[in-house]
Amino acid sequence: MAAQDEQWLDEIKWNADGLVPVIAQDAGDGQVLMMAWMNRQSLARTLQLGEAVYWSRSRGRFWHKGEQSGNVQEVREVRLDCDGDTVLLRVVQHGDVACHTGRRRCFFKRLDGLRWVVDEEVLTDPATLYSTDERNE
Amino acid sequence: MAAQDEQWLDEIKWNADGLVPVIAQDAGDGQVLMMAWMNRQSLARTLQLGEAVYWSRSRGRFWHKGEQSGNVQEVREVRLDCDGDTVLLRVVQHGDVACHTGRRRCFFKRLDGLRWVVDEEVLTDPATLYSTDERNE
Repeated sequence: MAAQDEQWLDEIKWNADGLVPVIAQDAGDGQVLMMAWMNRQSLARTLQLGEAVYWSRSRGRFWHKGEQSGNVQEVREVRLDCDGDTVLLRVVQHGDVACHTGRRRCFFKRLDGLRWVVDEEVLTDPATLYSTDERNE
Repeated sequence: MAAQDEQWLDEIKWNADGLVPVIAQDAGDGQVLMMAWMNRQSLARTLQLGEAVYWSRSRGRFWHKGEQSGNVQEVREVRLDCDGDTVLLRVVQHGDVACHTGRRRCFFKRLDGLRWVVDEEVLTDPATLYSTDERNE
């Protein structure tokens, strides 16, 4: 992108590590699927590709969500919050599985009293999702 | 809380600053209202009170959302993601305004081409919301 086209990226308040938290929400039913991080380059790539490209903090590299599993996130809308430090994506989740555990979404634990309980089922065997180490960081 | 009751808090992966990002989602229509941060104590207080109590990083103190404006967030559900480092709350947003700008939600800017455009209206004059400095950090 030419420098003059990067104004929208300059308006984001990147943290000390050059990252911004990104929430992925299902464009259909509004479920919050996951939260991950992007740096400037990964957000620019996301826009160019039309699919979510996060920055994996643990692996220190771009993480094109679904690059192995095929469960890409097609981006329908990119939103920014009032103070510019959080991004919200509305996505079409291919394969209907956003979580590396094979569940629809990463938020599959619910606080029940003082205990976390898993209340969402595994839709796809995670062993079939990845050939090597792609996961949610 | 007694130490034996804090196991659920121990299962959260707090960051280096002792914080976790918290997404607040409307329990009714599923809108993502805002993202803010909590520390261990503020999440414990949230549970005890049944209303969202964040940790304001800018002010370095507890931030009981709506303490001045009355726009509290009644917590209906607390969820945790697969790797334990992000919390999702489903809330009833009192006053129907989550953002300090007087809008329904903080994500009121949408990327249109290469430009952020505001596409949500101000529902409440922000001057009437706060007597001093309560805002989204």
